[in-house]
Amino acid sequence: MTQFINRKEDIVQEAIDGLIATSGGRLVRLDGYPHIRVVMRAGWDRSRVALVSGGGSGHEPAHAGFVGEGMLTAAVCGDVFASPSVDAVLAGIMAVTGEAGCLLIVKNYTGDRLNYGLAAERARAFGLKVEMVIVDDDIALPDLPQARGVAGTLFVHKIAGALAEQGAPLHEVAAAAARVVTGTHSIGMSLDTCTVPGAPREERIAPGKAELGLGIHGEAGVEQVAYTDARSAMHMVAEKLATFTAPDVRHVALLNNLGGASVLEMAVLAHELVQSPLAGRLSHVVGPAAMMTSLDMRGFSVSLFPADAADLAALHRAVPLAAWPGMAEIAPVGTVELPDGLRPIRPLASDHGATRAFLTQCCEILIAAETDLNALDAKTGDGDTGSTLASAARALIAAMDRLPLSDHTQLYRAIGQELSETMGGSSGVLLAIFFAAAGDAASSGQSMGEALEAGLARMQEIGGARPGDRTMIDALHPALAALPQGLAAAAQAAREGADKTAAMERARAGRAAYINIEQLRGHVDPGAEAVARLFEALSDR
Amino acid sequence: MTQFINRKEDIVQEAIDGLIATSGGRLVRLDGYPHIRVVMRAGWDRSRVALVSGGGSGHEPAHAGFVGEGMLTAAVCGDVFASPSVDAVLAGIMAVTGEAGCLLIVKNYTGDRLNYGLAAERARAFGLKVEMVIVDDDIALPDLPQARGVAGTLFVHKIAGALAEQGAPLHEVAAAAARVVTGTHSIGMSLDTCTVPGAPREERIAPGKAELGLGIHGEAGVEQVAYTDARSAMHMVAEKLATFTAPDVRHVALLNNLGGASVLEMAVLAHELVQSPLAGRLSHVVGPAAMMTSLDMRGFSVSLFPADAADLAALHRAVPLAAWPGMAEIAPVGTVELPDGLRPIRPLASDHGATRAFLTQCCEILIAAETDLNALDAKTGDGDTGSTLASAARALIAAMDRLPLSDHTQLYRAIGQELSETMGGSSGVLLAIFFAAAGDAASSGQSMGEALEAGLARMQEIGGARPGDRTMIDALHPALAALPQGLAAAAQAAREGADKTAAMERARAGRAAYINIEQLRGHVDPGAEAVARLFEALSDR
Repeated sequence: MTQFINRKEDIVQEAIDGLIATSGGRLVRLDGYPHIRVVMRAGWDRSRVALVSGGGSGHEPAHAGFVGEGMLTAAVCGDVFASPSVDAVLAGIMAVTGEAGCLLIVKNYTGDRLNYGLAAERARAFGLKVEMVIVDDDIALPDLPQARGVAGTLFVHKIAGALAEQGAPLHEVAAAAARVVTGTHSIGMSLDTCTVPGAPREERIAPGKAELGLGIHGEAGVEQVAYTDARSAMHMVAEKLATFTAPDVRHVALLNNLGGASVLEMAVLAHELVQSPLAGRLSHVVGPAAMMTSLDMRGFSVSLFPADAADLAALHRAVPLAAWPGMAEIAPVGTVELPDGLRPIRPLASDHGATRAFLTQCCEILIAAETDLNALDAKTGDGDTGSTLASAARALIAAMDRLPLSDHTQLYRAIGQELSETMGGSSGVLLAIFFAAAGDAASSGQSMGEALEAGLARMQEIGGARPGDRTMIDALHPALAALPQGLAAAAQAAREGADKTAAMERARAGRAAYINIEQLRGHVDPGAEAVARLFEALSDR
Repeated sequence: MTQFINRKEDIVQEAIDGLIATSGGRLVRLDGYPHIRVVMRAGWDRSRVALVSGGGSGHEPAHAGFVGEGMLTAAVCGDVFASPSVDAVLAGIMAVTGEAGCLLIVKNYTGDRLNYGLAAERARAFGLKVEMVIVDDDIALPDLPQARGVAGTLFVHKIAGALAEQGAPLHEVAAAAARVVTGTHSIGMSLDTCTVPGAPREERIAPGKAELGLGIHGEAGVEQVAYTDARSAMHMVAEKLATFTAPDVRHVALLNNLGGASVLEMAVLAHELVQSPLAGRLSHVVGPAAMMTSLDMRGFSVSLFPADAADLAALHRAVPLAAWPGMAEIAPVGTVELPDGLRPIRPLASDHGATRAFLTQCCEILIAAETDLNALDAKTGDGDTGSTLASAARALIAAMDRLPLSDHTQLYRAIGQELSETMGGSSGVLLAIFFAAAGDAASSGQSMGEALEAGLARMQEIGGARPGDRTMIDALHPALAALPQGLAAAAQAAREGADKTAAMERARAGRAAYINIEQLRGHVDPGAEAVARLFEALSDR
């Protein structure tokens, strides 16, 4: 699969420069390209303990995205999935470490341990105070004495970061970090592998399978399991984690997107997490968000940490980093009652002979035109314009006894309401909007002509169609414009408008917009035809 | 491709409940499942103008993720890529609208226009003040009179949201929203389609191709273009946008992840954006972040808006929403000079006959063992342990004249430095760490035995191997423990330790950890053997 990258060799430094350029001046980097790729806080004064992390790239936003006030002081970035060199780590340490010293936060991979470890030795030889914690939160491989470091690392960054920002001494920051490492347990699950730049994607996971207990470098999971849905997936993850948590202790859960799950899926997984067997052991959640990714892997991980009050305060502390999603207390879903009276109160039914006759006639005209309009629509659409209008007309006749026929102001709205409930599709909604807006205008004292014009204007605004777009408006617009001159003039204008649609070579609204010119040419738009027939019939009355 | 969902019909409401449960009590929803899915601010008092947006789902975090202080008051969520119903929108409007009124922010799709439009009419019939803006920022289809609404919608949410939060009246909020719509232009590009839940993924985009001018509902782009790299991709996008921007006006760029691009790729794209032909017209950037997605589409979009000072203030205003990444001023990448003296100053060379002879002898012992150790390693590893150690020994002999032979404290560190520069792989780094730590201990006044023990301890800490893990430590650890009783005792202890490794059925560190028991059984670990031979030869001297 193609990716949004340039040369493979340049990915890491281009990504770093992209991050820094869009950091609003919060970040700088060491001038050591291409070998030394160290992102650090701008204006760092070395007065407090420095936190340096990093490792292989491909886990973005980790780690450079977490450099900033209240979290990391610097991140040393290796190639994708490869540890940075000793020299790069040493440069990072020396660039940010003052008398207060420095804590290295290192994920438990041999390369990272060794390179950070030797860099720490060298830095100590320069007289710098350097401590190091190894994060090994992954529970996927219970038999392996050296568990991997995965997304639980974020807990260390945040809690140690808050302490360091507040001026705690190195031994205290390091002890807190070590305590967080001990308390943190993580496991991940994935439905797909990741795309390593420059390498073909490995198709290792068959449809219907998921990998449980994977790492963040594209390595295979500990077991392939049958995948059915998000609920059972989270259940498996929760069961693995449950053995590492005491039932009576509340934990913070960090729900991490491994990169390729959609935001929608992550929200579903968040729902499953708070419904899972773990739910009773959870008090807060960080995420869901992509924090420690494995490039574009469609997977997630859950990390748990039993935070005490001080830890919670540290996790809550706001940081100016878009990559840190913040922590929230898990709460039941609050609901608010539906507003009363979503259905408008129907105006009192009333009779009015002339209005009843007029409306009935209009409906009958449309019912009579059903077959013709369907035939016309069949040439340029799906052949149902006649039926749609006739059905609505029949429904309106059936509703006649409950309409406020003697209150013309209310009548428009009532007709709109009936139409919106009985007519399907866009045309039903548009006619409902037409009558609702006309009713608004009428109720504010405008004349019938003005009210109908107001309805037309609103219908155009909402529907987006204008005269010339090959819709019913091509007949309705000239008809209403001519109405002051009488029904006959309106009918003539409607007919002329409808006939013109046969020459319109492009439909610009409605479904006919997808039909090509040859199919349209010579055929009158069925909606415009309906309007013309209505005015003609009324005029002939 | 499988996704982290449960039943297709439940996705939207499960995702909403996941969002609300992890919102820390900031959000609630209307009690109208399954038909009415409205997310709203908790504790909203209707004292100010309400902002209601929404539309089809599948664009997460839009829109529910932007409900909160300073942005939306409520979001009405339809099915994936389908407009919510009139009733749902009306319920949303009525739930949040007080005397100050309500602004509907609607993306320009027929279904949304109609359903929000009719809901607005109905709400007005209830006497509510409701205004509506239609966002049509997409420039992909210049011939289409009804441009689509895409990620530029976020500018409207944020600027109108800031005004409403500050108590601006409806007409002012609506006018600002309309002005933002007019000024905003967006276009997207994708390398892959999205996976609509329950539908097979359409494989429409061939490798080496990209779609330019796509929408956010999985619809095909306006053109398929040849795709080479991120730079040319951003160039094409920038050229399309350039025709809609004046060269002398500075714009805010919103860099949106359509859902499936990795965070790493988005950072590369950010780098390309600020290097693109548009760069001179940009002052600020929002993102990169997934704000208006098309499920898991591997694509991005850029939206531009010429913000004035008031707009910038509104965009800058902090909101408690993880989905809003904030806005940053675009700045050149700041660099900091590399720290001085990353290379430790070499201690002054000095001679010392006995030390030179001892060191040389050690080296010669290892050189003599090269073939044997390689043969041993070939049985359980890749057969190079002997060569690795012999090369390092030869290099150390060659370096003898520049070592501080008469200053034993400095000598440890100098040996560590030489080894780290000449030996490849983990073992080189580990030995360097061993000697560096021993040097530290020696310089703080500890005896040779104590210094070597300190080196061993640090090597174990960093490398993670312990006695019994089938490494050189199995010989080195007992040897150093016995050293106070003399070299002969140390040699015997080393030999016993090395021989024991042949019975260890599981290697727990180093490359041999990946070898199965049958291959290991009966073979002494080559690293342990090297240590044993070294002590035996020294003892026989």
